[in-house]
Amino acid sequence: MLRTHDLGTLRAEHIGQTVTLAGWVGRRRDHGGVAFLDLRDASGVAQIVVRDEDDFHSLRNEFVLQVTGTVERRPEGNENPALGTGEIEVMAREVVVLNASAPLPFQVDEHVEVGEEARLRHRYLDLRRPGPNKNIRLRSEANRVAREILHGDGYVEIETPTLTRSTPEGARDFLVPARLAPGSWYALPQSPQLFKQLLQVGGFEKYYQLARCYRDEDFRADRQPEFTQLDIEASFVEQDDVIALGEQLVTALWQLIDVEVPTPIQRMTYADAMAKYGSDKPDLRFGLELTELTEFFKDTTFRVFQAPYVGAVVMPGGASQPRRTLDAWQEWAKQRGAKGLAYVLVQEDGTLTGPVAKNLTDWERDNLATTVGAEGGDCIFFAAGKATDARALLGAARVEIGHRTGLIKDGDWAFVWVVDAPMFEAAEDAVAAGDVAVGAGKWTAVHHAFTSPKPEHLDTFDQDPANALSYAYDIVCNGNEIGGGSIRIHQRDVQERVFRLMGLDEESAQTKFGFLLEGFKYGAPPHGGIAFGWDRVVALLAGEDSIREVIAFPKTGGGYDPLTAAPAAITPEQRKEAGVDAKPQPQSEATQAQADEA
Amino acid sequence: MLRTHDLGTLRAEHIGQTVTLAGWVGRRRDHGGVAFLDLRDASGVAQIVVRDEDDFHSLRNEFVLQVTGTVERRPEGNENPALGTGEIEVMAREVVVLNASAPLPFQVDEHVEVGEEARLRHRYLDLRRPGPNKNIRLRSEANRVAREILHGDGYVEIETPTLTRSTPEGARDFLVPARLAPGSWYALPQSPQLFKQLLQVGGFEKYYQLARCYRDEDFRADRQPEFTQLDIEASFVEQDDVIALGEQLVTALWQLIDVEVPTPIQRMTYADAMAKYGSDKPDLRFGLELTELTEFFKDTTFRVFQAPYVGAVVMPGGASQPRRTLDAWQEWAKQRGAKGLAYVLVQEDGTLTGPVAKNLTDWERDNLATTVGAEGGDCIFFAAGKATDARALLGAARVEIGHRTGLIKDGDWAFVWVVDAPMFEAAEDAVAAGDVAVGAGKWTAVHHAFTSPKPEHLDTFDQDPANALSYAYDIVCNGNEIGGGSIRIHQRDVQERVFRLMGLDEESAQTKFGFLLEGFKYGAPPHGGIAFGWDRVVALLAGEDSIREVIAFPKTGGGYDPLTAAPAAITPEQRKEAGVDAKPQPQSEATQAQADEA
Repeated sequence: MLRTHDLGTLRAEHIGQTVTLAGWVGRRRDHGGVAFLDLRDASGVAQIVVRDEDDFHSLRNEFVLQVTGTVERRPEGNENPALGTGEIEVMAREVVVLNASAPLPFQVDEHVEVGEEARLRHRYLDLRRPGPNKNIRLRSEANRVAREILHGDGYVEIETPTLTRSTPEGARDFLVPARLAPGSWYALPQSPQLFKQLLQVGGFEKYYQLARCYRDEDFRADRQPEFTQLDIEASFVEQDDVIALGEQLVTALWQLIDVEVPTPIQRMTYADAMAKYGSDKPDLRFGLELTELTEFFKDTTFRVFQAPYVGAVVMPGGASQPRRTLDAWQEWAKQRGAKGLAYVLVQEDGTLTGPVAKNLTDWERDNLATTVGAEGGDCIFFAAGKATDARALLGAARVEIGHRTGLIKDGDWAFVWVVDAPMFEAAEDAVAAGDVAVGAGKWTAVHHAFTSPKPEHLDTFDQDPANALSYAYDIVCNGNEIGGGSIRIHQRDVQERVFRLMGLDEESAQTKFGFLLEGFKYGAPPHGGIAFGWDRVVALLAGEDSIREVIAFPKTGGGYDPLTAAPAAITPEQRKEAGVDAKPQPQSEATQAQADEA
Repeated sequence: MLRTHDLGTLRAEHIGQTVTLAGWVGRRRDHGGVAFLDLRDASGVAQIVVRDEDDFHSLRNEFVLQVTGTVERRPEGNENPALGTGEIEVMAREVVVLNASAPLPFQVDEHVEVGEEARLRHRYLDLRRPGPNKNIRLRSEANRVAREILHGDGYVEIETPTLTRSTPEGARDFLVPARLAPGSWYALPQSPQLFKQLLQVGGFEKYYQLARCYRDEDFRADRQPEFTQLDIEASFVEQDDVIALGEQLVTALWQLIDVEVPTPIQRMTYADAMAKYGSDKPDLRFGLELTELTEFFKDTTFRVFQAPYVGAVVMPGGASQPRRTLDAWQEWAKQRGAKGLAYVLVQEDGTLTGPVAKNLTDWERDNLATTVGAEGGDCIFFAAGKATDARALLGAARVEIGHRTGLIKDGDWAFVWVVDAPMFEAAEDAVAAGDVAVGAGKWTAVHHAFTSPKPEHLDTFDQDPANALSYAYDIVCNGNEIGGGSIRIHQRDVQERVFRLMGLDEESAQTKFGFLLEGFKYGAPPHGGIAFGWDRVVALLAGEDSIREVIAFPKTGGGYDPLTAAPAAITPEQRKEAGVDAKPQPQSEATQAQADEA
């Protein structure tokens, strides 16, 4: 080693010892003939005293030094109790410049003035800053804690392939040309879903992996083309077993930031979550449940409220919002695709004001505040129309209200399991939301095509898909879905019925999922699992809004990496060699062979 | 859970208890009215007694059952001491078929009659077999043990990107079209090399990752297009530090199979390895060093031995090989690109026979056996020509001799660090061996372009590349390179000199490695590391010749996956959407931006 001690470990007990240290130059202070500099390594910072002017003057920020000297007690009054090494300083005898540094594009400091693109372009400098450094270390600890629990519980860590076949799961696949089979392509997996199920067929019973996954999406806010999930699957389990394991993991992870998560974590049906919070990811750090008013307004004369669904959410103290703010809410709603956000202001004396109020009947005016739980000084926001759209709007308004009114506080944590989600949604809704429907059918899976119906819907899900509930469970933290899973289908005929309902004819099902259906023929055990969105979990632990802050080398919007300037053009030779333009065979021999066997 | 107990845990202490079990049907025996079946789960096997004929007759191999019954002591004489559960059996009260199984393509048994392709096509069945199952579990344990050591030593686990820029390291890159930047492509990384170095620039000091890597090679024997390495890098370290950590890891890993690896592991220079063993991966489980005879034959009249290098290796007892076997050696040598393999047989009375013997002078005949250390009954094999080729042939012959003569024994282990490898080799040799030269120069890197010269060659490596030694170290086990690493270049000017020597002009260096050179401007610390070929390490631990046996879902030659039939054709829509055929911009804006800044 180029050093004898880590800087941050130096203490009074080392006084008198000769030490060799290595690290980066931080703050420097020249006190005429004696210079002080903070030398930093991964373990911390210590103060170095340099008496040789020649040594000192050549040094600049972020130079890498090797310093040999003697540990001494700081002169009285110069101690720094905020620093672990604050009692001592090191009198330098020899200073070796291991490497110089050019002037920095930004300072290695708690705060930074430049934008994210500049930070990411020089990410190696950004990562020297305390915040980013701490985030990446926290992520490593999260990995360790999760693995310890899973290993302790008998889970086997198994790597699954990433050069594989397309596994349609609601997003586009990234494709990779196969040079040795020109015209053929691998796909990068959207998740290890099919492989982890086949590992259950393979008798491993308990599998896990911190798996890299790939989805070629249109970069909705804060998505990355590659991301990581803690992927778990087990055989002979029921929903309660997976939930218990999930809670064990969450509890241990949040202990890393000294937060005690009370268990069992509450459960809520998908239907309740949508009705009360307008979201399948309800933020339960605060109340403000939605009130359905469809019945209340069933005889209304106000045209806007003559709708299949009317609902409301209350903004405490919202009656005092200036007109400008209320107008801004309209804009806010329009950006979400709504026509606007109807509201009524409840004055302190109980009278209702605002443009909607005069459209209400006397009875409606008399009973509205009590029905929605509003008090004098509150604002009532309304949405009317198709239930799903109106609830989504109110749900979003509710969260916005939570932030604006301070009901959502830093350091609050609320977890909830959302269970009993519908199996299917209209394919057109999924496509409208940016997903890729797997089949050509009217219905597509809400979770994915491998999710089992609840036992009571096993016989009927394909006759009555609109009402079929899935054996799925999502865990939500502060309004973020941090994990989701389900009991899977393990019977070939059930899986085929799901594929059929989703509009996959037998041939497509065979082409896309033939190997899964084949596997289900040979004693597939009942199984289920869960996957945690690891980037999001760590971002929450780190107190960061963006998952980019907990990824060592993230990409910006559009999947661009400012550091390496990837993606980039390739040379014509590369293109030729990769076989990109080779004539694809109508059906590869391999596919043919598989089809023959089926 | 669908069971109360794991099958393999049942013991005499459970006698009298009612248990519910779940697993797969193995062997069945019908004893007229009473049937016995072995039920298997991940924990082991227990004997189930079924009295109900109806229950029994419908069962077939690999059906998945849930059995409820009572644990009883086996009748005297029926115990099976080879089985943990051999004292008990379970009298079934209720048998539920959780899933049926079609007739199997092959039996789930210790041994299997079908070929690898069939095994891999039904890998989920293959993995139920004891051997493959054990291998994958061993791999999980190896991961755990390695991580424990690294975490204990303060290493931070950091994930690096896999959708990134081409990182030329001697093989072709797999490419991924970027739909959102049509005409641009990501590359899958050949290793995290550049990122792990940038993490050192970023001040993490100790990094590790079990990293997926990708090399698009022409599938030499037993390579996979995707593979895993245990990737390690640290700052302020010297060769001895990395070697010490490597030995700590190896020791702990081999303890998993109850093998004590004595440390320190011996070190050998690359020059010695080539001279004595004709290989940079010497198998030291046995002796049989090569003897150089160039000097010995300097005045020879035998034309074949008038060569820049002559060497020999002795096959103990080889004089008694029949003519047919000696002819087969010639074929063996020809398959390796040699003209043949000259030999001399030393008879028990000391006379030399064989076609070469009569070409030797009296002096040569009198002194040969003593010089090469051959005794009566041995065979001496020769190679003459260019030193590298001749040594390689003798090295391969030596290993073959080791196997044929039983000098290599199962259960023997021999580790060695090979150090002081040359920095450069002739680019044409690298290309001939199937590598891709990074630059257009006469020389290319033996390890990779980021390997530091040894300090004594720092000033001269570009004037005298043929003799420059690198600060590299490979660890070899039983003739397999299981890990390799080096102290890296951390100075921008040194890195630029290496690039220049390899024939990368400034522009190419900037395009390919601009971000690394940029990073080196801002206080890059001295650093080094190592990467273990994880598939090979686990294969050795598992006693398997092929790495495919320790990969859950491996590909066969040509990168084909018999299970999913990947790679496969894509649809014209996919092709269009992926932007494969978009006109690539001559230089992407991104590249331009980076070039501007440099």
